[in-house]
Amino acid sequence: MQIKRLVFRQLLLLLVVLPIASTAQTAPTVRVQHNLMPVPSSVEFYSGRLPIKDSFKVATKGHSDARFLSAIDRAMKRLQGRTGFTFDPTLATDTNTATLLIQCESPGQTIPSLSEDESYRLEVTERQAQLIAPTVVGVLRGLETLLQLVTSDQAGYFWPVVKIHDQPRFRWRGLLIDIGRHYEPPDVLKRNLDGMAAMKLNVFHWHLTEDQGFRVESKKFPRLHQMGSDGLFYTQDQVRDIIEYAAQRGIRVVPEFDIPGHSTSWLVGHPELGSAPGPYTIERRFGIFEPALDPTREEVYKFLETFLSEMASLFPDAYMHIGGDENEGKQWDRNPRIQAFMKEKGIKDNHALQAYFNQRLLKILEKNKKKMIGWDEILQPELPKNAVIHSWRGTAALAEAARKGYDGILSNGYYIDLIYPTWQHYVVDPLPADSTLTAEEAKHILGGEATMWNEYVGPETIDSRIWPRTAAIAERLWSPRSITDVDDMYRRLALVSIQLEELGLTHERNVGVILRRLARTKDIQPLELLASVVEPVKEYRRGQQRPATSLTPLSGLVDAARPDSEASRVFTRMVEGLLSDAPRFQLYSADLRATLTSWRDAEPALNTLIDASPALREARDLARDLGQMGLVGLEALSYLNSGTTPPDGWLLKATVILAEAEKVKASALEFPMLPSMRNLVTAAAELPQLKTMTPAEWKKRVITIANPPKK
Amino acid sequence: MQIKRLVFRQLLLLLVVLPIASTAQTAPTVRVQHNLMPVPSSVEFYSGRLPIKDSFKVATKGHSDARFLSAIDRAMKRLQGRTGFTFDPTLATDTNTATLLIQCESPGQTIPSLSEDESYRLEVTERQAQLIAPTVVGVLRGLETLLQLVTSDQAGYFWPVVKIHDQPRFRWRGLLIDIGRHYEPPDVLKRNLDGMAAMKLNVFHWHLTEDQGFRVESKKFPRLHQMGSDGLFYTQDQVRDIIEYAAQRGIRVVPEFDIPGHSTSWLVGHPELGSAPGPYTIERRFGIFEPALDPTREEVYKFLETFLSEMASLFPDAYMHIGGDENEGKQWDRNPRIQAFMKEKGIKDNHALQAYFNQRLLKILEKNKKKMIGWDEILQPELPKNAVIHSWRGTAALAEAARKGYDGILSNGYYIDLIYPTWQHYVVDPLPADSTLTAEEAKHILGGEATMWNEYVGPETIDSRIWPRTAAIAERLWSPRSITDVDDMYRRLALVSIQLEELGLTHERNVGVILRRLARTKDIQPLELLASVVEPVKEYRRGQQRPATSLTPLSGLVDAARPDSEASRVFTRMVEGLLSDAPRFQLYSADLRATLTSWRDAEPALNTLIDASPALREARDLARDLGQMGLVGLEALSYLNSGTTPPDGWLLKATVILAEAEKVKASALEFPMLPSMRNLVTAAAELPQLKTMTPAEWKKRVITIANPPKK
Repeated sequence: MQIKRLVFRQLLLLLVVLPIASTAQTAPTVRVQHNLMPVPSSVEFYSGRLPIKDSFKVATKGHSDARFLSAIDRAMKRLQGRTGFTFDPTLATDTNTATLLIQCESPGQTIPSLSEDESYRLEVTERQAQLIAPTVVGVLRGLETLLQLVTSDQAGYFWPVVKIHDQPRFRWRGLLIDIGRHYEPPDVLKRNLDGMAAMKLNVFHWHLTEDQGFRVESKKFPRLHQMGSDGLFYTQDQVRDIIEYAAQRGIRVVPEFDIPGHSTSWLVGHPELGSAPGPYTIERRFGIFEPALDPTREEVYKFLETFLSEMASLFPDAYMHIGGDENEGKQWDRNPRIQAFMKEKGIKDNHALQAYFNQRLLKILEKNKKKMIGWDEILQPELPKNAVIHSWRGTAALAEAARKGYDGILSNGYYIDLIYPTWQHYVVDPLPADSTLTAEEAKHILGGEATMWNEYVGPETIDSRIWPRTAAIAERLWSPRSITDVDDMYRRLALVSIQLEELGLTHERNVGVILRRLARTKDIQPLELLASVVEPVKEYRRGQQRPATSLTPLSGLVDAARPDSEASRVFTRMVEGLLSDAPRFQLYSADLRATLTSWRDAEPALNTLIDASPALREARDLARDLGQMGLVGLEALSYLNSGTTPPDGWLLKATVILAEAEKVKASALEFPMLPSMRNLVTAAAELPQLKTMTPAEWKKRVITIANPPKK
Repeated sequence: MQIKRLVFRQLLLLLVVLPIASTAQTAPTVRVQHNLMPVPSSVEFYSGRLPIKDSFKVATKGHSDARFLSAIDRAMKRLQGRTGFTFDPTLATDTNTATLLIQCESPGQTIPSLSEDESYRLEVTERQAQLIAPTVVGVLRGLETLLQLVTSDQAGYFWPVVKIHDQPRFRWRGLLIDIGRHYEPPDVLKRNLDGMAAMKLNVFHWHLTEDQGFRVESKKFPRLHQMGSDGLFYTQDQVRDIIEYAAQRGIRVVPEFDIPGHSTSWLVGHPELGSAPGPYTIERRFGIFEPALDPTREEVYKFLETFLSEMASLFPDAYMHIGGDENEGKQWDRNPRIQAFMKEKGIKDNHALQAYFNQRLLKILEKNKKKMIGWDEILQPELPKNAVIHSWRGTAALAEAARKGYDGILSNGYYIDLIYPTWQHYVVDPLPADSTLTAEEAKHILGGEATMWNEYVGPETIDSRIWPRTAAIAERLWSPRSITDVDDMYRRLALVSIQLEELGLTHERNVGVILRRLARTKDIQPLELLASVVEPVKEYRRGQQRPATSLTPLSGLVDAARPDSEASRVFTRMVEGLLSDAPRFQLYSADLRATLTSWRDAEPALNTLIDASPALREARDLARDLGQMGLVGLEALSYLNSGTTPPDGWLLKATVILAEAEKVKASALEFPMLPSMRNLVTAAAELPQLKTMTPAEWKKRVITIANPPKK
């Protein structure tokens, strides 16, 4: 389900105090700036440390099984990789002298479910770290916290003395990956499952069918995957392997078979299921298409019963997602037999017809002991209360469903394909503080899911679209509602992003790969600079500016660029600092000059690369704009530093340059630091007026420029 | 088989003219500096170009099959990725108007063999490119050439007009990957198979068993992989998948089961096969170990017959490698029953006993229709002539075997685990120009194999040890003997290295991953600088300087550093240029100053990173040495530039600094530019003596310094 237009709350939250609980403790707690993400529900630091040395040993107590032991082995390997130590891989027999004692009380659920207990306690003293959890999944979650707690200084690696009690705020914390529009091989999914586990996410929503691809092997109806996938599908063995891999990490796998719309790929091999005669071919374009299953024919339900039963035994999770979104019913409108059916049954419109379809589906799922999930559209009057609403519409729609007694999960606000900055997702809460739901109703809000829709995402780039931003969504879904400090989130996110690389994730490393391929040289510094200060355009504008199909290569500059440019955030902070230093304008002045100079100097270097590489042609106007912004920024800086009035016409020239930089680009890239550039230029242009003010008035004025009032 | 000591011919070959054949052509050929690697056996460029546009279409003629069509599809996707174009994926029906016409004459061998015809012809005119090959494998090879031929300028992408006739010089062009000492997952093998195919290599030598791991599933004797692999083995399904993946790329898969030595992992689950009673555990250390199969017991042969028969049906290749190396026979010496057996049978020593073992093995292999390959050691008087000798000893041993009538392949000189620079491998020829073999004997030299022994190589680092250096070995094995221009090899290798990245290879991208993990920040510029000017120590010194077992993490600075430092090569070239410019000493002076300044300034920045990261402590002395070399280099440069005599004591100080830099480091890293630093310092120190010389004498003297006479 794709959101057409999202309105996010534009809250830039200020630094808040770290949530250190102040319960009655004998030893005094200490304030520590920790790097944990998601922040645990309760964490108390004390003075002291437990050193991590090559003598590190793990002992276990209580329940033990293969999943438990593998998890410990993986965690120790990661700790080895970070510290360089070689640990003895055998478990310690003496629980007293082991560095880390892990006590697990029960196996928990080997097929993870919504009711799994994921809680754990972690107590580090100067003598030992103890991790205690009621289930193996709790141990998994605690091990991730333990890895994030590793600290170092000149004395070596250590864990700070700490007490953590932790459990998730929401039970459903998911990531949807759409492998319909672009296929992703199993190893890409596996490394993302590892990333999910590191961030304590627990639901992999596998969007398996789309207009552009039917990606799961069906032994009952092999023409589905054989004719609907270009050969890019998961065998049932591969599916089982992924499910097992996820279960090892305490992650549920919820499959989605999106019907009755979004079903072109089904119809390539089985046109008889469609509401128009066909023939059908795999869709290559992106958007909403007409093909839809025919809800009026018994053969369709017979087919679905056989197919969904096959899938129900392949996927052990209690839930099955049936999509149900974006069916506009145009094929239904044009099919006289369907129209006659509706008249005969008294079905008044296409919504009611889809409700009828869903009722039939529900019976099939019930027979297979599966609960139904679907997008907002399935919420029709007769929907039974055990169905789950997956909301792309927003918290209001979700609350409305909850009031009616339906469980729900939120994805509105977590559409990571739209290339919004991290903070915009971070501030979205499935159950916001101002919710008017009763406590009982609020229990229906199960959690949320980040959605990785894959129009413009392939194996080389998917990680950079998912990570690190999804870590902030994971925190929103795990941590207490009160954890809302955006600056601190960004600080921790930078560290987490590097840690995620050890799992094989490629969000950092593949930028250079794409740029080197484009430039056909290793000397890509100017391109790296350019890529660091641009972002892909937001929402669904990429398709308009750089038309593409599912066959278009994902290897352009826009694919190397990433969401939420860190360089732009730094630039903005510097400009705000400079302007807050009125009338001196010295703060960050040297850093800003260096940055603007690097922009100015990048232009000729970029043009040399562009001349040699036709695939880089679309960067020509970006190079020009960057160079010009560097130039005009340096001028603005110089006027501000020296208190000199800019000459007549300078503001006009600067305005033209910034307007050029703001124009829609064929590259589908944009400069997120443009508002800050505008502030810099405006401040310089206003110098003559400012001169009649007192320093205090200056400050007020330029800070207003830097932080324009919210609309 | 590990080489104890290699002596490479220290030939730095001078620039030679590109091998453009001057056959009688109607149109005049033109000289083009091409980027092809390996260089085709015959290539003639003409003026003109065939533009590559988004209207690009492929047509085919003659034989077609699934392997053929997949190969075209993969090649088109890579061309799309580089150019950004979206091509119509359907084949053109009109062979006249297609941009590329591929004519394949026969399927060739679906299980690739030594006798496969890999030749192809490529003719590009301004109207069309034509690729003609007798087999699908020939087409595969030609498509790789076509991808390397893609050129661009401001007018766009194009193929130059060219005629290429190409076929390999040697039939056996392999890469051995040892997954015994460290396991590599299937996707790592697959991306390396893609890299091999891109470089026209055709044998993947899969070293499947070692003291440290038995890595293939045996259904007959499951205790082999279950107890001998820590769970890190390939299932038979995975093996079949890899073999199929390789066959799709025209690559043979030759399995190696290394016996009777190197067999500890076999004995963990089957101690009854050993020559001492056991019990045995998986070996964690590196080196030569005592465990060896017992060659005197019939049960051992019965076991091997069952096991090797199972493997013979799993691996379709006609050859099976039985290792046979480095068995010192210590267990045999100590076993009275074995000694009695030898006495009884008149077997005079352990060599003869191993020859007896090999005779028995040979019969098993013959029964399974497999030809035997083994390392040099198997060459014993009674070895039948259809066995193949794999030489770690060198071209002389290989020639000797050929004279006796044995086929042979060379690996001496291609031990890429030893971290030698590329050119040292490039100059090694399995059949050197000075060979005294007759034409008939020379036919026994089948080719060679690069050997990736995996003591210090894991999934994150293996690609950077294999690539790009193996591309130069691939060229030696494919291209005519006359292709020996080292400088031109390095020029093409830099381009090829970037192209290899599109196959998922990580030799470039993972350097940053390791450095970021070590530094726990994205700001790793000083570490990148340091890593770029050091190399891991050569041969087997790493294990001495930085003791390790198979459990030690491969995540240190030494793992981020790569063989054949490009920065050092550039530095050497600059110093040679500067000294050749005597007595002015201006050439490269500014570049050298910038480089030496960056070294000097890196030291404090490195120390800040090292302070925060205990895993970086081992870089402390490298940081100091780099800073000191920067400082003393700048002083030397300044004396040379200004013609000033260095003060008393300066040479002593500089000598001490360089001696410090040369000391063995705990990090197992070394500075390959030290000889050039020494030249720079020596030249500055000799300034007073030089001043009495004429400029011509100066030049001669300093050029002698820069290029010290070969010993």
